[in-house]
Amino acid sequence: MAKQKATNVTWQDGEVSREDRFSILRQRGATVWFTGLSGSGKSTIAVALERALFNIGKLSYRLDGDNVRLGINKNLGFSEEDRTENIRRIGEVAKLFGDAGVISLSSFISPYKADRDEVRSLHEAAGLEFIEVFVDCSLAEAEKRDPKGLYKRARAGEIKNFTGIDDPYETPVDPEIHLKTDEMTVEQEVEIILDHLRQNGFIMQQQIPSADNTTNTASL
Amino acid sequence: MAKQKATNVTWQDGEVSREDRFSILRQRGATVWFTGLSGSGKSTIAVALERALFNIGKLSYRLDGDNVRLGINKNLGFSEEDRTENIRRIGEVAKLFGDAGVISLSSFISPYKADRDEVRSLHEAAGLEFIEVFVDCSLAEAEKRDPKGLYKRARAGEIKNFTGIDDPYETPVDPEIHLKTDEMTVEQEVEIILDHLRQNGFIMQQQIPSADNTTNTASL
Repeated sequence: MAKQKATNVTWQDGEVSREDRFSILRQRGATVWFTGLSGSGKSTIAVALERALFNIGKLSYRLDGDNVRLGINKNLGFSEEDRTENIRRIGEVAKLFGDAGVISLSSFISPYKADRDEVRSLHEAAGLEFIEVFVDCSLAEAEKRDPKGLYKRARAGEIKNFTGIDDPYETPVDPEIHLKTDEMTVEQEVEIILDHLRQNGFIMQQQIPSADNTTNTASL
Repeated sequence: MAKQKATNVTWQDGEVSREDRFSILRQRGATVWFTGLSGSGKSTIAVALERALFNIGKLSYRLDGDNVRLGINKNLGFSEEDRTENIRRIGEVAKLFGDAGVISLSSFISPYKADRDEVRSLHEAAGLEFIEVFVDCSLAEAEKRDPKGLYKRARAGEIKNFTGIDDPYETPVDPEIHLKTDEMTVEQEVEIILDHLRQNGFIMQQQIPSADNTTNTASL
């Protein structure tokens, strides 16, 4: 890695390119987009994947309700228009992260195919990878888990337009990764995504330090 | 670095923390916010700083009109309300980048003190650093340069509400860094910012590889 970097420095006068950033990180930026019912396990898998990536020295960043709905999207509600704008902005942020070199992990129900496809298009137009991960959990199972008690409230009519109850979840047609959560452990799910990232060149082998690159990396 | 990382893995079971991400990158995420008149040199300095950071193996990412006005903020115009929302969203994106560990470089005129202070508050509330860089260039000099021919058009009345002509630029009161561009070269300006980043612990010395950490970094 250090040798490669030094080469870049020699032949590039202008801006730092996306590939330059990828070379610093020894990974390629990408968007891992989890979609599925409330309670399907999207966030749990994203947290476990984040940990697994960290363990091999890779930089990921989770985009979720906590840091998005309270920040960049705090002026959005739950109307159809606002839901679409919510997903659009998250898609644009994920695109910027991918361009920066970060592997972002987005966990949003994102029930509408058109919204997901729009985010995919944004990425493709920018030459960035959109990895759609369908977190496939039956409604019965998700409702049984009901970790936040939301299904119960939706069934009682206290929450309207709840995905799976009185609002549709549009199943992904051809996702990059299809996780049948009723049949797998979280560890197995994480391993499937890691394999995808490895096999498609998003995460590269860490360089084994050796004596001859000492001067290159100690450049500060 | 490798040893430190291995330690984190041992004692943390839960999520990956901000500090974990900083340790992977050997830098602390932060927002470098350039503010100044059109033509003052904000983007030029940001490009040169990005290059200088890359040369020492540090990850930065420029947020500017190209990747923001055409993306996350493409549904915003130039009304006062939209300008404020423009800066707010950029501030929120910068905050996410800082949390991820990236040093973001924002180049926007951002003429209103209230808007800049709002972004500063967002960062402080999140425990992140906002480094305001006042790119101080006289109106006479900026208008003489007029790289995009915008001042000429504003003087001709073809552009309304142009900062410095018929819209105010509110000078930063106590910016972290004040660059008097009429008296300095771009190289000197970059060095001042790098010094600030070094002295405040945002960029850390690269680890010198040695034989004893070979096994830790070759973990993929």
